[in-house]
Amino acid sequence: MTTPAEATEAAHHAGHHGYISDKDRYLARLRRIEGQARGIHRMVEEEKYCIDILTQVSALTSALRGVALGLLDDHMKHCVVDAAQLGGDEAEAKMKEASDAIARLVRS
Amino acid sequence: MTTPAEATEAAHHAGHHGYISDKDRYLARLRRIEGQARGIHRMVEEEKYCIDILTQVSALTSALRGVALGLLDDHMKHCVVDAAQLGGDEAEAKMKEASDAIARLVRS
Amino acid sequence: MTTPAEATEAAHHAGHHGYISDKDRYLARLRRIEGQARGIHRMVEEEKYCIDILTQVSALTSALRGVALGLLDDHMKHCVVDAAQLGGDEAEAKMKEASDAIARLVRS
Amino acid sequence: MTTPAEATEAAHHAGHHGYISDKDRYLARLRRIEGQARGIHRMVEEEKYCIDILTQVSALTSALRGVALGLLDDHMKHCVVDAAQLGGDEAEAKMKEASDAIARLVRS
Repeated sequence: MTTPAEATEAAHHAGHHGYISDKDRYLARLRRIEGQARGIHRMVEEEKYCIDILTQVSALTSALRGVALGLLDDHMKHCVVDAAQLGGDEAEAKMKEASDAIARLVRS
Repeated sequence: MTTPAEATEAAHHAGHHGYISDKDRYLARLRRIEGQARGIHRMVEEEKYCIDILTQVSALTSALRGVALGLLDDHMKHCVVDAAQLGGDEAEAKMKEASDAIARLVRS
Repeated sequence: MTTPAEATEAAHHAGHHGYISDKDRYLARLRRIEGQARGIHRMVEEEKYCIDILTQVSALTSALRGVALGLLDDHMKHCVVDAAQLGGDEAEAKMKEASDAIARLVRS
Repeated sequence: MTTPAEATEAAHHAGHHGYISDKDRYLARLRRIEGQARGIHRMVEEEKYCIDILTQVSALTSALRGVALGLLDDHMKHCVVDAAQLGGDEAEAKMKEASDAIARLVRS
């Protein structure tokens, strides 16, 4: 599904975006999350008991939080460190961007 | 996809579980949520920029919160009112169940 | 500090508002919360390390969540059950009020 | 209340901890937060209506989130940038520390 050119391009981005080391683990977690979302859809379709649906929604929300915190951690260790080392406006812009993402996450 | 017997059974449960009035709207929202989950998987697969992925995770978390609060509201208006009217242990058990679900939601 | 008339009035409200059984425990928890808030003020005053301040803010937020979930649980067991038993518009209004409070809590 | 020696020490820490620019604003916000905590204590003492207390708890939680996000933003712009510029283990340790603080905040 991936051409060699795309693989090279992906490897380049991986280095830059910095979460390649755990990519397979993220993909597995996200596939589970998709399955959880489908399961909740099915529960409503089949009119399961609300409380049981809510339990699954809470579990899915927790799983998403886990992925978000993992991605943020990777982002801080790689992109943020790299940007900070450049210094100046670039560093400042990256920090603001990360802060804004954290605020959205905390408030979501 | 639904046999008449299943439809009757579903209608019965709908009356009992109480969120039938909005069922189509919930299903549409949950289908969108599944799409969002697939989109996040794809973004990690394609190694998109972390911050953009985090933005999508926050949006998905908010969408889930909205569904959970809607289900909880329906649950309170129907199951909880019905159980409270029965009184006694049944009412108490339903209230505890709802409180526990709220606590899981708040902490998720 | 409380006149007998106020005490009677308070006892009346206690019965109505329904969380009297644990009142002393709530007051003790809230006194601790006030102390935590004062401690955070002092830490900023003394310019302590941000991460240590954030740890205290998270602890205070958790303590508040605990109080809120306790109050909500009491509210459900008492006011909501009572209102549901009255039925009709009164029951519906109480459920809506409780749902709205839960939504504010989940989103805070 | 502050000796000159303490003031110098504070100024030093201020430079290091990096949130001095807004210190007065943080102190004012935290004083308001202390007042909110005292108000909630008083409401329970006087057995006010649970829902009104819950509304105040949600408002206080939001105010705390705001302070936490502000402190985190300041921390990122100053301590994290400084540490990242040092590079190596120091940078890595700071990033881990910040990530952990964010996780506690998101989960609180």
